[in-house]
Amino acid sequence: MSFRQVTIFGVGLLGGSLGLALKQRRLADRIVGVGHRQSTLDAAVARGAIDRGTTRPAEGVAGSDLVVLATPVGRFGPLLTEAAPALAPGCLITDVGSTKRAVVEAVTPIIPPQCRFVASHPLAGSEARGIDAARADLYLGALVLVTPTPAGDEPSVQRIEQLWQALGCRTRRLDAAMHDRLLAQTSHLPHLAASLLVEALSVEAADLVSTGFLDTTRVASGDPAMWRDIFMTNRDEVLRAVERLEAALAEAKAALTSGDGAAMEALLQRAKIRRDQLRSGR
Amino acid sequence: MSFRQVTIFGVGLLGGSLGLALKQRRLADRIVGVGHRQSTLDAAVARGAIDRGTTRPAEGVAGSDLVVLATPVGRFGPLLTEAAPALAPGCLITDVGSTKRAVVEAVTPIIPPQCRFVASHPLAGSEARGIDAARADLYLGALVLVTPTPAGDEPSVQRIEQLWQALGCRTRRLDAAMHDRLLAQTSHLPHLAASLLVEALSVEAADLVSTGFLDTTRVASGDPAMWRDIFMTNRDEVLRAVERLEAALAEAKAALTSGDGAAMEALLQRAKIRRDQLRSGR
Repeated sequence: MSFRQVTIFGVGLLGGSLGLALKQRRLADRIVGVGHRQSTLDAAVARGAIDRGTTRPAEGVAGSDLVVLATPVGRFGPLLTEAAPALAPGCLITDVGSTKRAVVEAVTPIIPPQCRFVASHPLAGSEARGIDAARADLYLGALVLVTPTPAGDEPSVQRIEQLWQALGCRTRRLDAAMHDRLLAQTSHLPHLAASLLVEALSVEAADLVSTGFLDTTRVASGDPAMWRDIFMTNRDEVLRAVERLEAALAEAKAALTSGDGAAMEALLQRAKIRRDQLRSGR
Repeated sequence: MSFRQVTIFGVGLLGGSLGLALKQRRLADRIVGVGHRQSTLDAAVARGAIDRGTTRPAEGVAGSDLVVLATPVGRFGPLLTEAAPALAPGCLITDVGSTKRAVVEAVTPIIPPQCRFVASHPLAGSEARGIDAARADLYLGALVLVTPTPAGDEPSVQRIEQLWQALGCRTRRLDAAMHDRLLAQTSHLPHLAASLLVEALSVEAADLVSTGFLDTTRVASGDPAMWRDIFMTNRDEVLRAVERLEAALAEAKAALTSGDGAAMEALLQRAKIRRDQLRSGR
């Protein structure tokens, strides 16, 4: 499981960390970064995350046997359209995007017949962004959701699984529709709630935030452009998850309005037991 | 700033940590713990958080010059009613409760004429509970909100401020109504949102939670009985804070429904900037 040349689109936190990890484990002879700012590419070279950088997608993928898309998901289609004519036969393409239906829909039609596309979503990251925050161990121990696509056969799915496993990850296959439904609940809705809690804070209350508030809203410090794309490519499932939250909220509001302490305690108790299980399950 | 004998009602995380901190800084000659289970009191003695424990409130406060209420807030009134006849003249009473209007209302009428009551709320804690989680540095560096009451004069307010400062805290005075309004936004609503996010998670999604979900919902692992009392003694302000959240949610839902990426990014950007400021402001 190693590659002659790997191209990474987007050398921020996710792409840069992947470059560092591939280097550290000697899984790539050469790494090319593609970005839209030369300064970021230079910083990625200086960090040792890539060997060279280019702002031109076609030049970036020429001669590579693995291409990884690590920009905001809304950019995947346009970038790969530019790069497609230069993709080498046999090239394997994957991504690290946080939604999957829109990605599969946008990317699959662009993949040339002799190339393969298998989507990936490593459940790793941080509210930090940019190449300065990149680190070789970002993906270590993470669960990576691998989504087969019409442009990827079984051997290509297995190669992508082996790639992530070689980087110290666990993998699990999940189709695009189920991925988007479940991630709306585990990731997109919590992110939205965190942003809205910050939004709902009055000016006077801002002085009094404690570690509880900061932990609850940590993810709201994430990259707005990346998260805009996540929300825009998973709108229906995020709205469905919002409905689930609203149903739970209605129950809490009823308990608050009527002063039903037993109902409120039952809700808090259920949530505590469940969250303690989630934590210990990891 | 030191006391001959301090009585702490409730020797869990908050009361136990206070005992350890008072001991470490030699601010109390003797510490008496009052609890409803002998086993907890024995554990607190073993941890060195108190010198002796009793299950009888009146016996617990006899001869003390400081009494600290550190049980769930709903218990303050009943416990102090039992203890009041045994309070020594000049005894200073405070608490570490997370709501203030209900506490001031319940406790003030019980305070004997020669005693003083000044309410406190240290913005410190953790989702852990019980004496095993207690630690001497829990309050270190914390902001403590000090609420004057009709049963406390200016010298007594200053003594309580000096007590917390001697424990390494910053203090700020805040009246009970404003306290409850602001804490509903910074603490009670985030706690409710965290519990509801856990509640809204489907069984299938539970396998896919990542550190983002666990951080966002950390506070939901807090003590349900303590939080029931917090919600029940601050219902109107929590409902008002819920309305603020619902207004922000309506805006996000509109952006999701219409596919307005610019509106969604603007919301995420505002929240990110504000949260980054909150973090760096601390």
